[in-house]
Amino acid sequence: MAQKVIFDTDPGQDDAVALLAALASPDEIDILGIVTVAGNIPLDLTTKNALKLLELANRIEVPVHAGCAKPFGRTLVTAEHVHGKTGLDGPDLPEPQIAAKERHGVDFLVETLRAHPPGTVKLLCLGPLTNVALALAKAPDVAARIQEIVLMGGGCFEGGNITPTAEFNIYVDPEAASAVFRSGAAITVLPLDVTHQMRSTKQRIAAFEGLGNKAGAAVAAMLSFSERFDVEKYAWEGAPLHDPCVTAFLLAPEIFEARPVNVEIETGSELCRGMTVVDYWGVTARPQNARWVRSGDAEAFFRLLTERVARLP
Amino acid sequence: MAQKVIFDTDPGQDDAVALLAALASPDEIDILGIVTVAGNIPLDLTTKNALKLLELANRIEVPVHAGCAKPFGRTLVTAEHVHGKTGLDGPDLPEPQIAAKERHGVDFLVETLRAHPPGTVKLLCLGPLTNVALALAKAPDVAARIQEIVLMGGGCFEGGNITPTAEFNIYVDPEAASAVFRSGAAITVLPLDVTHQMRSTKQRIAAFEGLGNKAGAAVAAMLSFSERFDVEKYAWEGAPLHDPCVTAFLLAPEIFEARPVNVEIETGSELCRGMTVVDYWGVTARPQNARWVRSGDAEAFFRLLTERVARLP
Amino acid sequence: MAQKVIFDTDPGQDDAVALLAALASPDEIDILGIVTVAGNIPLDLTTKNALKLLELANRIEVPVHAGCAKPFGRTLVTAEHVHGKTGLDGPDLPEPQIAAKERHGVDFLVETLRAHPPGTVKLLCLGPLTNVALALAKAPDVAARIQEIVLMGGGCFEGGNITPTAEFNIYVDPEAASAVFRSGAAITVLPLDVTHQMRSTKQRIAAFEGLGNKAGAAVAAMLSFSERFDVEKYAWEGAPLHDPCVTAFLLAPEIFEARPVNVEIETGSELCRGMTVVDYWGVTARPQNARWVRSGDAEAFFRLLTERVARLP
Amino acid sequence: MAQKVIFDTDPGQDDAVALLAALASPDEIDILGIVTVAGNIPLDLTTKNALKLLELANRIEVPVHAGCAKPFGRTLVTAEHVHGKTGLDGPDLPEPQIAAKERHGVDFLVETLRAHPPGTVKLLCLGPLTNVALALAKAPDVAARIQEIVLMGGGCFEGGNITPTAEFNIYVDPEAASAVFRSGAAITVLPLDVTHQMRSTKQRIAAFEGLGNKAGAAVAAMLSFSERFDVEKYAWEGAPLHDPCVTAFLLAPEIFEARPVNVEIETGSELCRGMTVVDYWGVTARPQNARWVRSGDAEAFFRLLTERVARLP
Repeated sequence: MAQKVIFDTDPGQDDAVALLAALASPDEIDILGIVTVAGNIPLDLTTKNALKLLELANRIEVPVHAGCAKPFGRTLVTAEHVHGKTGLDGPDLPEPQIAAKERHGVDFLVETLRAHPPGTVKLLCLGPLTNVALALAKAPDVAARIQEIVLMGGGCFEGGNITPTAEFNIYVDPEAASAVFRSGAAITVLPLDVTHQMRSTKQRIAAFEGLGNKAGAAVAAMLSFSERFDVEKYAWEGAPLHDPCVTAFLLAPEIFEARPVNVEIETGSELCRGMTVVDYWGVTARPQNARWVRSGDAEAFFRLLTERVARLP
Repeated sequence: MAQKVIFDTDPGQDDAVALLAALASPDEIDILGIVTVAGNIPLDLTTKNALKLLELANRIEVPVHAGCAKPFGRTLVTAEHVHGKTGLDGPDLPEPQIAAKERHGVDFLVETLRAHPPGTVKLLCLGPLTNVALALAKAPDVAARIQEIVLMGGGCFEGGNITPTAEFNIYVDPEAASAVFRSGAAITVLPLDVTHQMRSTKQRIAAFEGLGNKAGAAVAAMLSFSERFDVEKYAWEGAPLHDPCVTAFLLAPEIFEARPVNVEIETGSELCRGMTVVDYWGVTARPQNARWVRSGDAEAFFRLLTERVARLP
Repeated sequence: MAQKVIFDTDPGQDDAVALLAALASPDEIDILGIVTVAGNIPLDLTTKNALKLLELANRIEVPVHAGCAKPFGRTLVTAEHVHGKTGLDGPDLPEPQIAAKERHGVDFLVETLRAHPPGTVKLLCLGPLTNVALALAKAPDVAARIQEIVLMGGGCFEGGNITPTAEFNIYVDPEAASAVFRSGAAITVLPLDVTHQMRSTKQRIAAFEGLGNKAGAAVAAMLSFSERFDVEKYAWEGAPLHDPCVTAFLLAPEIFEARPVNVEIETGSELCRGMTVVDYWGVTARPQNARWVRSGDAEAFFRLLTERVARLP
Repeated sequence: MAQKVIFDTDPGQDDAVALLAALASPDEIDILGIVTVAGNIPLDLTTKNALKLLELANRIEVPVHAGCAKPFGRTLVTAEHVHGKTGLDGPDLPEPQIAAKERHGVDFLVETLRAHPPGTVKLLCLGPLTNVALALAKAPDVAARIQEIVLMGGGCFEGGNITPTAEFNIYVDPEAASAVFRSGAAITVLPLDVTHQMRSTKQRIAAFEGLGNKAGAAVAAMLSFSERFDVEKYAWEGAPLHDPCVTAFLLAPEIFEARPVNVEIETGSELCRGMTVVDYWGVTARPQNARWVRSGDAEAFFRLLTERVARLP
């Protein structure tokens, strides 16, 4: 039976690839809805991009709900320097014909979790955790109903990307992230430690291009666009691919290695704001509250993604 | 015309007096609803207490909406040592016959603010600011629709009451308070600096008692109960009366003195968690984001309260 | 028998008055030496000013030892806006003929404390606590030899003066202050709470002027110069006189009221850097590590100072 | 010509190996003195251990000066769980016949730096940076006289060892470390990132053992003793060898790779206390204040050490 999930996302180039791979996998992943959040770009653009992707994948029955337009108590920081002005610069996708639903993303989260049996719905989080934190604050009962939160965010051995210590998704709304990690919900983290191993080399991009379908061309265009940023910074052959690790973890957890750890979010210090403080070696008495994915098989990861994108129009 | 308001409150003894004084003043204060929050005691009790007070005041048409059951991302800290186990220990009020509405308090806040013309509704906040912060995060557009937030909380010259630096309402949910003070909404603060001047001496309590009505007896019982705490600590004649300052400020602003200041909330430091850092003397370049009430006329304050409670059954 | 003391100071107008009053009181105060520190102005000027004051008081036998030129690990912040470019703008004192000793102020502190029986020497600290903290770090044994540290610094009910939360002396070197308050040495604090009660009104300044001696004229000139700053800020009649409270506390402790408290120094938060977090009401379990002087008799204080300055040339 | 150096150290097993390798290299390293500090174990033991090592190496002409007995303003944290009760558990070294000098280690640092031409003396720091920070605070002029500070401490990609975020040497006295990194002195850091690559496998320990001299046997015993700790934690074959990287960096910098970075020390946050926040990728505008050694050639490193220890008695 397909795993029921809700995506919480701020697409964004790599969010887009993560969504497309999931939309191409209906046998394994039953997407109850997509909730959008401000992050890589403002909320109106992340919402529009989610709609564009549904049309590209020909999956317009999936409902989109706009969530929070800014972090809890912070000014929004965005990442157009990575994703481009629209968040999906690169591929040339048409303006969407479909529209987002009326209901607020936070309410969609709460009500969907309450409408399904406890422990049957996973949240796949690809952006700042504002929506999830608000849902948990408004309706604390849903923490125990979430089967698992699988999120892209943070870093331990790889440090940060937006600052020396913080990864972008956590940095944008550290208070929300802290609330989520303290909520008691089951959490699996796909941090920079693993996403930095998933590099979209020219060859791998060419594989998407070579699929011959619209989706493959779009993915190739997205990866080509966003890669210029990290390639320059790290002098790597190919930029890391972050958010699709979440989808891949659902489809093929066996290609990743994880261990239970304690994660705390630094919210006080300006130097370390938004850092995921991970007790990877178990040197403290802090309780385990997450699984930390440190590594994965990059060949298998790209093979999986390519194979899924091939199924799309 | 009566001022439209929504109360956001965690009754609590002094919350109760603030509510009763407002319920007794329909010509000046039009209460659109009461939203409850966890604070002095857990949410189920603050909600029940709000209902009891409406029955005592014979104002059961005012809707009550339960809000958040815990702070944003923190464990709830309560204050039964001040307010007693029920939050209203002291007077003997019957179990309420009426019930709270279904709608969540946060949604009631958002929808009510949207349903009225901008700048016509004030929020009167007597507890932790969790509900207001969530409303602002979920629906940033309402910040500009709020006429004013008048809140009891914080301290500058008087320090804190729950810790050396923090007042209880702000301490319980400092991230929420910080979000509210950064929201751009107009804010007036009634801090410990002024509430510590409003002491319920034996004589003043006797004046409530002497009114001869049920409400007067209840108020006298509440003040007698909660006063034991601060009287012992500060060695004062009579304990300070906090939350009713908010109602009094609405009814008779002329008995208070205020000045515009910048207020920041300390959320990072453990020593100073929940402190209201007030630039009272204007020594920084931080923008003014609140009015700070430093003093008030205690005689006029108690005269006003007694006169209003006298109007109740 | 006269109380043995070492002054640790950054003169500074009010430091100057504190020193002059002590220099005029040899029967009660035996000044073993003056150690200078950077604070109100850089070290070379505070040292020169100390020498000038000894010549003015005709007490050139008192040794001056220059201490630290900057805070421990921070960039020096000075207060020329209060004290003027030389630190003693106002009176016209000649360039000193005497010179400071070779030995470093920190070593003078350590060696003097070791040369006298334990518990017989008090440190009178009128500036940032850099020298004392370094002495304690270099020679932890001297903590137990100090009879008492009497210092001007911090604030509780009066907040700060350099920032909303911090008083200048503590703000300049919060790490040093924190080290001193954790050292286990006996400490008495004369904070803004009391010094703000000691206002140099025109009448009180005139009393110094009227003494007819050089020292009286100099003190009058100093107070007239520095008062312009706080008078404007607080709209008070006369500026507060800070450091002389330390000398007065030695000469006449009965004119002050103190209580034992816990004091912690905030060093982490940018908002609250250098704040003295005082558990004045004993609401925490933190151990008492200082006496906090909250109030004093301003009339008696100025009478005492005037009477002492009268004894000088 | 031999490089003039002062060691500042808290021996400790790996400090001992670092010292022995340097004592065995008089042609390249001219040790002006050894200053001891509290760290791995209390000061009296680190001082005694330094003396023992001089006797073992037959270099008793090198002066030892005891420095600070505790961190600046913190309670001392030690690491007997790694180094054993004496700090040199493992080898059986006799009680030393020689004694430390009278002069305080901080004064020895200041005076030695002043006695040599600017830019000719390096400080090799193997423990908490208390002594160096105090020297810089007491005598700011020496910052510009130091040729370079080469220190073992911190971590970037490897996180911490005493906490998830902090390495022991920096954790013990973060305020001192912060002062040193802000001092303007040239600094090279040998962090956990590189020391974790230098693992004392059974084979490498056997090579020391096989040298047949007293020093080789002692080194083998030290490495065998301390390795049990990290081997268990990281499940590595052989424990990392930390402090000898400093000596090796002096003797053979070509076996290491470094880049200029900004390093800030976190002193405020409890979660991240003592963390070295390294802008390794240059994503901030913070100025470069250190060279960060990320990797080294472990084979060459152990070959070098073994060859040097072979020269000792």
